[in-house]
Amino acid sequence: MNIVVAQSGGPTCAINASLLGVFRHATKYEEIEKVYGSVNGIEGLILDNLVDLREIIRDDDDVELIRQTPSTVLGSCRYKLPDPSADISAYEKIVSTFKKYDISAFFYIGGNDSMDTVMKLDRYFKANGLTIAAVGIPKTIDNDLPETDHTPGFGSAAKYVATTMQEIIRDSNVYAVPSVTIVEIMGRDTGWLTASSAVLRVNGEPAPHLIYLPERTFSIEQFLHDVREAQKTYHAVIVAVSEGIELDWSEIGEDFQSGKTDTFGHKYLAGVGKALEKLVSREMRCKVRSIELNVMQRCSSHLSSKRDIAEAERIGGAAVKAAMDGLSGEMMVFRRVSNHPYNVRIDHVDVTKVANRVKYFPPEWISESGNDVTKEATEYTLPLIQGEQNFRFKNGLPQHYILPQALPHRRDLE
Amino acid sequence: MNIVVAQSGGPTCAINASLLGVFRHATKYEEIEKVYGSVNGIEGLILDNLVDLREIIRDDDDVELIRQTPSTVLGSCRYKLPDPSADISAYEKIVSTFKKYDISAFFYIGGNDSMDTVMKLDRYFKANGLTIAAVGIPKTIDNDLPETDHTPGFGSAAKYVATTMQEIIRDSNVYAVPSVTIVEIMGRDTGWLTASSAVLRVNGEPAPHLIYLPERTFSIEQFLHDVREAQKTYHAVIVAVSEGIELDWSEIGEDFQSGKTDTFGHKYLAGVGKALEKLVSREMRCKVRSIELNVMQRCSSHLSSKRDIAEAERIGGAAVKAAMDGLSGEMMVFRRVSNHPYNVRIDHVDVTKVANRVKYFPPEWISESGNDVTKEATEYTLPLIQGEQNFRFKNGLPQHYILPQALPHRRDLE
Repeated sequence: MNIVVAQSGGPTCAINASLLGVFRHATKYEEIEKVYGSVNGIEGLILDNLVDLREIIRDDDDVELIRQTPSTVLGSCRYKLPDPSADISAYEKIVSTFKKYDISAFFYIGGNDSMDTVMKLDRYFKANGLTIAAVGIPKTIDNDLPETDHTPGFGSAAKYVATTMQEIIRDSNVYAVPSVTIVEIMGRDTGWLTASSAVLRVNGEPAPHLIYLPERTFSIEQFLHDVREAQKTYHAVIVAVSEGIELDWSEIGEDFQSGKTDTFGHKYLAGVGKALEKLVSREMRCKVRSIELNVMQRCSSHLSSKRDIAEAERIGGAAVKAAMDGLSGEMMVFRRVSNHPYNVRIDHVDVTKVANRVKYFPPEWISESGNDVTKEATEYTLPLIQGEQNFRFKNGLPQHYILPQALPHRRDLE
Repeated sequence: MNIVVAQSGGPTCAINASLLGVFRHATKYEEIEKVYGSVNGIEGLILDNLVDLREIIRDDDDVELIRQTPSTVLGSCRYKLPDPSADISAYEKIVSTFKKYDISAFFYIGGNDSMDTVMKLDRYFKANGLTIAAVGIPKTIDNDLPETDHTPGFGSAAKYVATTMQEIIRDSNVYAVPSVTIVEIMGRDTGWLTASSAVLRVNGEPAPHLIYLPERTFSIEQFLHDVREAQKTYHAVIVAVSEGIELDWSEIGEDFQSGKTDTFGHKYLAGVGKALEKLVSREMRCKVRSIELNVMQRCSSHLSSKRDIAEAERIGGAAVKAAMDGLSGEMMVFRRVSNHPYNVRIDHVDVTKVANRVKYFPPEWISESGNDVTKEATEYTLPLIQGEQNFRFKNGLPQHYILPQALPHRRDLE
């Protein structure tokens, strides 16, 4: 028998580690002959675009490099599998690929959209009497997957956000003139990553002084009041704001709003930081700037959390075991056993509990004022950012894994 | 006798190392009793806002932490000293502070604007028969100071830019749909830092595929042509562009241009990346995004170049020796002796050769096409990004030096 693994959704620093987990754990089973990788997520299964992972991961050197390389070695996609009642053709193509390569298990590393794909495929396989396992492996810097304590990729992103925030704090404190610095952090629907900036307080850093998450209604009036209050205590006020907060754009200016949506119907979020910068500058006439941490949050593997990378690999391996034990239509999850010492065990849940669902930041971890998080939030995040990878540099630069030959990116689905 | 040191201009990762260089080298002279730090650059001398550095740098632990802390421990300023013929009052206040604290040498760590201050003070001291030495210590991520081979701070910024660029390249290559990614890099007048992104090629990375520096006239038409040509070869086109390129804003839209200028008469540069994103999106209708590396370029000390930090400390120490040898009105410089093996010696030049002047990126290091740099540029930059600091982490986060008590930031000059 053969198996196939694919990577989906937005890149993280840990998604390649989960790929390694699948690949390396599979070698423990004599009955698994080949581990295929599907290029550009599910698109590779539709377009018959697979690679034999043994040709890509040739030796320990490759393993070590892939582990420290951000983003997805196999490429990714945002393709949404249609409902089979609406269009069966994609399913037929996928099954045809599975048959051609004698594949009996499919592993999909991704977020809540990708778990929708796992769910649909599992249902289709079962309805059609196909003995193909479909297992989900969680991944997202947003940390917004239900059922799992946290998602691989989040710890590294949180470590980047906190470290960079700390450096921005130093940078913001240099001049005698008071200032406001607004840092925009990723999180389409949830505030997990923005909240993680508060971990700096364990090292005695009072900033960020104000933290705004999408889980609370955002009031421009309250925000301006908060900033004015913070200025009474702090020379350089630091604000952490999630890209996902809902702004009343009419109060800021229509020119800032982008109305585009992606294929999943999500709005492209951009400009919340710039919009608040414009607002503070107009209303308070003080020195203000905004900083967007942008894709660096999800791809700065030179600063990834050693624990996050190790866990990502471990949960990838556990997915193979689950499939070999006969499971399908499940997503692997972490259960936190204890915080002191930190201990998690790996479990699995019905993927329908995860697909298209969102795990919000707990409202009880947001301070009453709505502009900060509680110490529970920090205790939750802190163990996930621990440890630094023993990183390989070459010529003064982190060394990345670069494919022996470029993967064919097929565009037939675009 | 006592001496005083101050930090000026925009933050870097190496400016605190130069402060340490001055402080630690001073201890080798029995005749130097106290080393004062002036808070917020020259403003601290005008406002009598000094601190005894022994109270701030108490032990080896402090030394180690300050070395890995970005930005300026003493704060900074952008205050421009007026010409004495126009206004003598600032000079009188500075001399009064020097007399009060029995100071006979002043060290100013900064860029070309700060060297203007060193030049003016030296002239004033000499014209008034005061035996106070004024010595400049170079600093800027822009690397645009004349006479010196390179400036402390540049190597760390270049290492950050190249590393982050490499991670952005990985991030940009995930989807099957072709894309253009525009990365905006700091450099008010010069392209040194933007050009440094080309060092990735020594590790086999072909990107960035297009590099635009302010030293060449920027043509929107040529740029669009270049991008279209690059798309024929590259799935994900990566563009490195300096914030300082001169755009014909009328072709992009007036709403993007910011006309504000700072106290030195420099334009605030922002939005070149966003403007080009808008342009490509409008003209080519392909997936495009822009990323601004922002202040992270100058403050990401967790990724600083070990060589840069060591050199910054060494040149700070050399400045003390120069002053003790009787020099004044000089700026310390690096002379590159050889590249293989890399070797520099420290020298000094008349500060008038540096003040208010700019060292541009050599035109012969820009490719004929105007959209790339030659291998000479990479050979120049590569030695400067070598080595990683043995960084201290605490709770999974880089540990910063935080002042035992907050420095009083005085605003009387604002």
